[in-house]
Amino acid sequence: MIYLDHAATTPADPRVIEAMARCMREAWLNPSAAYAGAGTARRALREARQAVAGLINATPQEVIFTSGGTEANNQAVALARGGHAVVSAIEHASVLRAAAALCREVTLVPPEPDGRVRPEAVLDALRPDTKLVSVQLANNETGMLQPVAEMAALLRAKRVPLHCDAVQAVGHVPVDVKALGVDLLSLSGHKLYGPRGVGALFVRQGTPLSPLIHGGGQELGLRSGTENLPAIVGLGVAARLAAEDLDERAVREQALLDMFCTEVLRRVPGCRRLGEGERLPGVTALLIPGLNSELAVARLDTMGIQISGGAACASRAHEPSHVYRAMGLSDVDAACVIRISVGRETTEAELRTAAEAVEKIKN
Amino acid sequence: MIYLDHAATTPADPRVIEAMARCMREAWLNPSAAYAGAGTARRALREARQAVAGLINATPQEVIFTSGGTEANNQAVALARGGHAVVSAIEHASVLRAAAALCREVTLVPPEPDGRVRPEAVLDALRPDTKLVSVQLANNETGMLQPVAEMAALLRAKRVPLHCDAVQAVGHVPVDVKALGVDLLSLSGHKLYGPRGVGALFVRQGTPLSPLIHGGGQELGLRSGTENLPAIVGLGVAARLAAEDLDERAVREQALLDMFCTEVLRRVPGCRRLGEGERLPGVTALLIPGLNSELAVARLDTMGIQISGGAACASRAHEPSHVYRAMGLSDVDAACVIRISVGRETTEAELRTAAEAVEKIKN
Repeated sequence: MIYLDHAATTPADPRVIEAMARCMREAWLNPSAAYAGAGTARRALREARQAVAGLINATPQEVIFTSGGTEANNQAVALARGGHAVVSAIEHASVLRAAAALCREVTLVPPEPDGRVRPEAVLDALRPDTKLVSVQLANNETGMLQPVAEMAALLRAKRVPLHCDAVQAVGHVPVDVKALGVDLLSLSGHKLYGPRGVGALFVRQGTPLSPLIHGGGQELGLRSGTENLPAIVGLGVAARLAAEDLDERAVREQALLDMFCTEVLRRVPGCRRLGEGERLPGVTALLIPGLNSELAVARLDTMGIQISGGAACASRAHEPSHVYRAMGLSDVDAACVIRISVGRETTEAELRTAAEAVEKIKN
Repeated sequence: MIYLDHAATTPADPRVIEAMARCMREAWLNPSAAYAGAGTARRALREARQAVAGLINATPQEVIFTSGGTEANNQAVALARGGHAVVSAIEHASVLRAAAALCREVTLVPPEPDGRVRPEAVLDALRPDTKLVSVQLANNETGMLQPVAEMAALLRAKRVPLHCDAVQAVGHVPVDVKALGVDLLSLSGHKLYGPRGVGALFVRQGTPLSPLIHGGGQELGLRSGTENLPAIVGLGVAARLAAEDLDERAVREQALLDMFCTEVLRRVPGCRRLGEGERLPGVTALLIPGLNSELAVARLDTMGIQISGGAACASRAHEPSHVYRAMGLSDVDAACVIRISVGRETTEAELRTAAEAVEKIKN
């Protein structure tokens, strides 16, 4: 199979799997236990926190581990519980639905047709009672990067906290919480060749975050529950590995994806790549007018190519993506967008095969 | 080291570790993906759900996977959000603190000095606006089993839902949600030789549960987030293994623990075992008057014996357990209770060594 759906999930690196298995065999004591032997677990926890903090230029005390990106996003959005939040219209479901469930009122800011949300539009949506703004760093369906640093600069003057869902971006482009100037930032293990079931939330010191999950008081009291140490250790390893080759991977993936898009645009008349401007190196959305994306996914699948028609978790919802509609596509066109996302092990030959396959299914 | 703190966490069974590593290598596709290959992941998810449901005599549709016992308890308690809840005074922190944070009012029902909560006392605490009762199946510090089935029978007539935190019990004593008659029941992977970072919540059909974590709509919309399949698969394996030898393990562990207690009571005058009546086979609390438990834990640690002075997550809180105080112990006595919990690999020789060690540290 040719796997071109890395935005849905990435395979865990073999070194991540090995580190997790070793942790389960050798550092399985409860990190909260009082006996000295639990120190091994506590050290492993500390090292993983340093690694994750290092990847995003945070201090370790600013990183709390969660059960994944979805939980991290929910906890961040809960900062606006009962109040007003400003959220981009192209956020992941975990931000949009959390905001809808937890906030009294939510203002959705649509992107421009280029797939990017304007900082001024966010500013215009602010109200005196706005408790939080949430804008993703990279869109999970188009790969478009959002001007989060500019937004943060504008919002700082207004003293409104900014949450950034960076789940799709961390490990794929440089992410620096200080340079971005955000107050909260979410990331997820399984999007960067790390484990499922673990993520992290960067919490700038002084941000008035409350726990979403109460109990034993782990993670500075912000996230209770016995630490999921094997997965946390795996995330630490994934963070270190991601930092090592991030730049060269980005260059390679962007070249591969550009080649693929050029090929498909040449072969399939009327096809176009959605979004314009800065984007993730490895993720893109292609509109193929007249070809329903569910059908495209199914046909490519039979040809040995795995892609998606949008966010994986929405695959079974059978309705056009809110992202493509927010970018101004008609419902008909929005139902004809496929997402291609390449990864570390993707080869040029695979992408040439895939480009040919896209041409075939169109005809 | 002699590990006698299985109530804090159990080592994952090697077969669990192997199943998780295999899942990460071979079934890593996103279960929500539309392509056929993701069917392997979906089947693994289904099989794990069947295994967990089987262990507690639920139907698979009644089991939702969570990130652990703490999250399961929080989600259950959230059923009483903004309202009145009746909670036993000896619940785990994840129930007590969730109730304190989420409910408008909480009535705490203390146990009798025997460590058991009377069903009539729960009934007496009900009010017309009570939205939930939460009582654990087995206490995590004393091992005392609670008369949950009797409570459920009484509460059914009152139409008040009953949540049971069975984290400490599942996999160690038979747990049958139908026989118990509860509406919600929590369990955790790492307490039954399964993985960290995964648990489950039994939700009887028709129970008006809401999501705690919103997003992609996984787990019947009750728990969003990409499924933590490796851990879920590991939990499934642990559930199957637990069911296989549950009865013989219980008999063996109880015999070992009784022998240990008899030995310690003989060697240490004034020592007594807390609680009277039905209890978990492998967990017990011993009051050693005049010997501070933090000191006892530290001294035994230097002698190669790992125990705890109560719940692991409270180990660093440095205050006497709320459980022992609720049972009527003075603050002075409550600070002198140690918890011993045996497991599959515990031997009689280890317990004889430990009993001698307890005698030594007392003198």
